[in-house]
Amino acid sequence: MRESIDITILGSGSAVPTPRRNTSAQVLSVNQVPYLIDCGEGIQTQMMRYGIKQSRISAMFISHHHGDHVLGLYGLLSSYNLTGRTKPLHIYAPSEVQRFFVIQKEFFGDQFDYDIVFHPISFKSSKVIFEDKRIKVTSLPLKHKVGCCGFLFEEQPKEANIKKAAIETYELTIKDIVAIKAGADHTLEDGRVIPNEKMVTQPLPIRRYIYSTDTLPMLDKYEVAQGVDLLYHEATFDQKQTLLAKKTGHSTSKQAAEVAKRLGVKRLLLGHFSSRYKQVDPLIDEAREVFPSCEAVEDGRSYAID
Amino acid sequence: MRESIDITILGSGSAVPTPRRNTSAQVLSVNQVPYLIDCGEGIQTQMMRYGIKQSRISAMFISHHHGDHVLGLYGLLSSYNLTGRTKPLHIYAPSEVQRFFVIQKEFFGDQFDYDIVFHPISFKSSKVIFEDKRIKVTSLPLKHKVGCCGFLFEEQPKEANIKKAAIETYELTIKDIVAIKAGADHTLEDGRVIPNEKMVTQPLPIRRYIYSTDTLPMLDKYEVAQGVDLLYHEATFDQKQTLLAKKTGHSTSKQAAEVAKRLGVKRLLLGHFSSRYKQVDPLIDEAREVFPSCEAVEDGRSYAID
Repeated sequence: MRESIDITILGSGSAVPTPRRNTSAQVLSVNQVPYLIDCGEGIQTQMMRYGIKQSRISAMFISHHHGDHVLGLYGLLSSYNLTGRTKPLHIYAPSEVQRFFVIQKEFFGDQFDYDIVFHPISFKSSKVIFEDKRIKVTSLPLKHKVGCCGFLFEEQPKEANIKKAAIETYELTIKDIVAIKAGADHTLEDGRVIPNEKMVTQPLPIRRYIYSTDTLPMLDKYEVAQGVDLLYHEATFDQKQTLLAKKTGHSTSKQAAEVAKRLGVKRLLLGHFSSRYKQVDPLIDEAREVFPSCEAVEDGRSYAID
Repeated sequence: MRESIDITILGSGSAVPTPRRNTSAQVLSVNQVPYLIDCGEGIQTQMMRYGIKQSRISAMFISHHHGDHVLGLYGLLSSYNLTGRTKPLHIYAPSEVQRFFVIQKEFFGDQFDYDIVFHPISFKSSKVIFEDKRIKVTSLPLKHKVGCCGFLFEEQPKEANIKKAAIETYELTIKDIVAIKAGADHTLEDGRVIPNEKMVTQPLPIRRYIYSTDTLPMLDKYEVAQGVDLLYHEATFDQKQTLLAKKTGHSTSKQAAEVAKRLGVKRLLLGHFSSRYKQVDPLIDEAREVFPSCEAVEDGRSYAID
């Protein structure tokens, strides 16, 4: 069976939380291995509430150093410490996020018994900032009031699957199989050459997800963002507040939809809604006129990427 | 009808929150006017969840500058700012709490459009630190790893109520009534003197509440704490962890009960439980052996003081 990839929304509000929408955070889970994205206030409790195994997190990605994206970080890192974490934690974030951590650590005089390794993100250009056996993450510098980064999460390419019939028919050895999986043709004892594509089934296309908040509408300038399976884009305001959105470095839901359309993404999720909107249906309606395959996320819900 | 006084628990856990117990905070409500006590992470959301009208808060009382008591303060103060608060806010707290606010304000470069007035609490002695028409608050310096204060909240004395029959019988004027309420006797035209106590009913005794966390067991050294109606005392550990409690500047539930017994309080509430206890019943059992009128608080529950 194909491994699952999904995101769980921990906070879909903007600067001021509401009873239904916490400040920003979500978790990308690849076969239930969680990666945290942003960490607004109260996120450690949101993770408990929504069944995220937070002790399994080894890598975090923080977009920028505004309070609604970082105020939950210190509490989470402290709780790890108090509950005996020893596994290192890697945080990919603008350098200001590290500075915020350091001033709090100095204030409280805390000692951490596990390694916290900050990896500063440059805003100069998009680049691969993280890779493990499951995913590859590319930074996508955004345009906000302060340095801010979106993230492209891509599944690592899978090997081709060798057909059971090919193994039996051609009496393939382990060595043969490794070579064939890597793309080689196979030469039989009688000299006949069996082309690779006859012996394997190609893996499904890799899945791609983008987290893009907070930002003016500009993500479509990135070639690597074209056609992703799922795009989470901020939609802080409705169309009437277009000027306010520009002034505050945010997007309207319609602008987010225009970005999604230009990128040809498969599906658009909207979030980071201003607390002024008790109902976000009007924002979604405005977006759907431009890009029908879109919806508002809800805290606590998971969205599969497939 | 007598005005209501109650506390609502927003966080009854200790340093590490659990799904059921947030980090420390509670609200004292006097006729639904709220006063915030401590402000752990996520408390602004807890207030929304439990129906506290947070915009009505004008005074806050913070015990000490450990993260589980202050990490929610900056987010709350920011949200006030973003939602247009103009009313001044008074914060009664050790000076380190103000310093923590200032370093965050400098880090984020925020401007606040309302006045935030810090009133530093001294640890030298117990003193009245706040008074308004509803309550009087007295600091109770505690013994913890860092400077920490408990708080005694006392209802302001009410005037005596004048009996309707007295007004009619003696044809009292407004001037007479003011004098009688202030304790005067009343002289009739024929020279007879009506004693004050015949014309008034005395108000009910004032209600008193103490918030006491984080601390070693020592609150009973305060004379003013004697016989309060309700005492909230930390009970981080069970009896087996008495040494650990001492080492970390905390109390066991049994020690809290002993303090309550020595003070002759009417009712004891226990909280600030270590996250190691999935169920706190054993801690309550240990406490009840010493002081039967005690219970564990629960997040979201309100407890009347009467």
